[in-house]
Amino acid sequence: MNATEKKDKMITINEIAKLVEGTVSGDGTARIKGISALDYAGECDITFALDDENLKRAGESKASCVMVTRQTANYPKTTVCVSDMKLAMTILYNAMVEISTPPGGSIHLTSVIGKNVNLGKNASIGAFAVIGENTQIGENTQIGDGCNIGKNVKIGNNVRVYPNVTIYANIVIHNKVIIHSGTVIGADGFGYLPLRGKIYKVPQLGTVIIEDNVEIGANACIDRGTFKNTIIGKGTKIDNLVQIAHNVELGENIMAAAQTGIAGSTTIGANTLIGGQVGIADNISIGKNVKIGAKTGVQGSVKDDLVIWGYPYREANEAKKLHGLLSIFLKNMGKIRKFIRELPE
Amino acid sequence: MNATEKKDKMITINEIAKLVEGTVSGDGTARIKGISALDYAGECDITFALDDENLKRAGESKASCVMVTRQTANYPKTTVCVSDMKLAMTILYNAMVEISTPPGGSIHLTSVIGKNVNLGKNASIGAFAVIGENTQIGENTQIGDGCNIGKNVKIGNNVRVYPNVTIYANIVIHNKVIIHSGTVIGADGFGYLPLRGKIYKVPQLGTVIIEDNVEIGANACIDRGTFKNTIIGKGTKIDNLVQIAHNVELGENIMAAAQTGIAGSTTIGANTLIGGQVGIADNISIGKNVKIGAKTGVQGSVKDDLVIWGYPYREANEAKKLHGLLSIFLKNMGKIRKFIRELPE
Amino acid sequence: MNATEKKDKMITINEIAKLVEGTVSGDGTARIKGISALDYAGECDITFALDDENLKRAGESKASCVMVTRQTANYPKTTVCVSDMKLAMTILYNAMVEISTPPGGSIHLTSVIGKNVNLGKNASIGAFAVIGENTQIGENTQIGDGCNIGKNVKIGNNVRVYPNVTIYANIVIHNKVIIHSGTVIGADGFGYLPLRGKIYKVPQLGTVIIEDNVEIGANACIDRGTFKNTIIGKGTKIDNLVQIAHNVELGENIMAAAQTGIAGSTTIGANTLIGGQVGIADNISIGKNVKIGAKTGVQGSVKDDLVIWGYPYREANEAKKLHGLLSIFLKNMGKIRKFIRELPE
Repeated sequence: MNATEKKDKMITINEIAKLVEGTVSGDGTARIKGISALDYAGECDITFALDDENLKRAGESKASCVMVTRQTANYPKTTVCVSDMKLAMTILYNAMVEISTPPGGSIHLTSVIGKNVNLGKNASIGAFAVIGENTQIGENTQIGDGCNIGKNVKIGNNVRVYPNVTIYANIVIHNKVIIHSGTVIGADGFGYLPLRGKIYKVPQLGTVIIEDNVEIGANACIDRGTFKNTIIGKGTKIDNLVQIAHNVELGENIMAAAQTGIAGSTTIGANTLIGGQVGIADNISIGKNVKIGAKTGVQGSVKDDLVIWGYPYREANEAKKLHGLLSIFLKNMGKIRKFIRELPE
Repeated sequence: MNATEKKDKMITINEIAKLVEGTVSGDGTARIKGISALDYAGECDITFALDDENLKRAGESKASCVMVTRQTANYPKTTVCVSDMKLAMTILYNAMVEISTPPGGSIHLTSVIGKNVNLGKNASIGAFAVIGENTQIGENTQIGDGCNIGKNVKIGNNVRVYPNVTIYANIVIHNKVIIHSGTVIGADGFGYLPLRGKIYKVPQLGTVIIEDNVEIGANACIDRGTFKNTIIGKGTKIDNLVQIAHNVELGENIMAAAQTGIAGSTTIGANTLIGGQVGIADNISIGKNVKIGAKTGVQGSVKDDLVIWGYPYREANEAKKLHGLLSIFLKNMGKIRKFIRELPE
Repeated sequence: MNATEKKDKMITINEIAKLVEGTVSGDGTARIKGISALDYAGECDITFALDDENLKRAGESKASCVMVTRQTANYPKTTVCVSDMKLAMTILYNAMVEISTPPGGSIHLTSVIGKNVNLGKNASIGAFAVIGENTQIGENTQIGDGCNIGKNVKIGNNVRVYPNVTIYANIVIHNKVIIHSGTVIGADGFGYLPLRGKIYKVPQLGTVIIEDNVEIGANACIDRGTFKNTIIGKGTKIDNLVQIAHNVELGENIMAAAQTGIAGSTTIGANTLIGGQVGIADNISIGKNVKIGAKTGVQGSVKDDLVIWGYPYREANEAKKLHGLLSIFLKNMGKIRKFIRELPE
């Protein structure tokens, strides 16, 4: 993560302390413009210290302020003391994203921008980026270096696309979406029909719609729909190397951890949590608020609120019981084998 | 998928109806040059409508013709009515690919093309693409923006390489191959030798050969061979995020779904179907016409025509029976535990 | 793999034979500058022949010398005969890497290099590469075409970054590291906090440290730390499509095969071998010298020297016994079902 960079507005240390319910030691009136790890902190930045070594180095850094988890006497910098660093930094980071305007408005000289491209106010386009004709890029949106955005794409406001992302033609991305490097959105779904002894490619004519506040990790793939669209609902978070196949519809605020794959035309309800390396079959329906343990293979539809695990999946309690039972079998293997051998037909 | 773009030739609506065994309502003599989703359809395009809302919007679109699944009275556009939209669109799409010439012949000014590169007739090279020296690019082949093609690569005719693909030196790609964005072909295989307490890298001196009509999804990896070559047989289809290790030999018309991994030096026979997230061990042989269920772990060689599933794999029937038996165990867990406890050694 | 290219120094065939404990036939005084597959061998290259067809073609190639596994009479080239080709080529390849200087010193005219970038002696930067401000690139380091290196990155000496790699800001890479195409280093970890009914992004302020002699395959992802750093220890080898989450610490000389995923804040000891498609849970500790079979799901911490397998994992011996026991159950399913049905509560 790059430090939050605030162009126009700043926030005082006192205001930060209020936000994160922390206590200021030192001058609380100084203004802060960014959050940074201590090695890269500049003069108007706040940094953080989780241990004594960090605390010492933070004291010698350029930062104006250090967030700490316990009070320190005779410290050379202003501190904000909080009880939960992760919570405090998360609140502060999100507040600063809200009040900041991204450093935008620069269209790199090397970028190739097609006809009829509509660039919103303060949008920025990186070096060697290609923007296809008739594409719209919203306000404050940042398209990273080397990104390839196809024709007729619509990207909303305050979107951040990191370098080397590929977005095929006709894709629709709403506001405040973050897409990490290497991700490919809108490649053809995996669809073929066997006909008269040959395999024919099924045209993939739908698109992908990514709603507000979605974040997509690095090297993920979201395929375009066949006739309908692939949809990623508001606030859903997708980790690195995840595969979302054609026609999948994800609801709101779903979390899908790394290397998970969701096969074609499956729908998943809001707030469902999906562990890493989960595989979800095609053409099934997963409910809301489902919790799916890592590496689970979901071979059939799942009702709301279930907690599932295993391959093939069972309710997590059952899967754990089964694991325990198999351990008992293992411990008693000799006598079980003997018993089975002697069991009458 | 971008709409099929036909440069020189067109097909009449009557000809389309004949191809797809559909019925024309309206003027069947109009000529069609492309297939498109309705939001992006131009004047000589055919679009499609799967439901009433789509049908209404298609009527208001710029398309010349709408493919439908039931007859509609008083419709403002010419329609072709078919019983199976997916089948009809697939037949039409593949027919149009055959008669079309891709929009080629443009070598982007920003591309960097090495010495002794041989570009076939109507080949096109995208913005910021790099083509290494002595590389051959065939007729009508399209190399997307930002692609990196190494030295001494041979790419055949009518190949489509989407943006941001990386192809290492010496790779051989035959005709009518499609490669989606982010895919890497020819990186070093994962080979190391421990020697005198150190780990030494084994040089990967072979190449990759990709035969006709292969399609490779996004962000897939196909490693070069160590001394021999990695081979992808004719017509084989590889989905997103698939890993093909060094020295693997895939036969013809194999389908490998997303996130599957095939370890080094394994061979797989023609027409085998591989589900998503399957893992196949190294140095084994999988037969022809095998069907491998999603998430299966294939730890040993598999004969022709088997249907397998599970981790570790069993014949699918057996794996399903085992799953059922474990469910019976679970339902009777209390009495089984008691029985085992009391079982004599 | 591209042939090793040696700029300044050469090695004689006699010296090669000594290194690999082979026998020379022909003129051993000729000097060799590279290793190459026979189709691409130039005049000062050594190539290899594993079978008769290769031997014949190698005889007609431009190579100066052919490594063979048995003596051949009346052969037109000088040969070095060895008993183990893989071992011999590995020793030779690594020796030539040591004595060679990479072909460097060229900064492509199209690259975009930020302010205060420090380029070491003989470093090379490819076409369309972007190097962020304040970044350091060491001696003999090669940054491939289309790579995107963020601000404040430190890359050591003799590093090779293949084309289209993305390295985010502030990352630290030591010496002799190899990174293959499509890999993304330093994207944000997957961290969110639910607060007052909303999901908040946790800022990812740490970095990634990659130590000497690490090799990372294609399309892999290594996320930056949250507050601490993600660390990849000396000599560790990471295959294609592997996911390393935030705050993971890998020890030295670990091997992680393709598509493996290691979840957040987990530590792994030196010399541990991890098969393909393994999933390792977050916040656990895996010991040294552990061997983890392919597709294993590691749900809890693992002590040194264990061999584990399965999902959920067990010691490999136990997992294999369990697999055997389940096979016995399957064979006797009818009578077991009958027995269970009749078993008293």
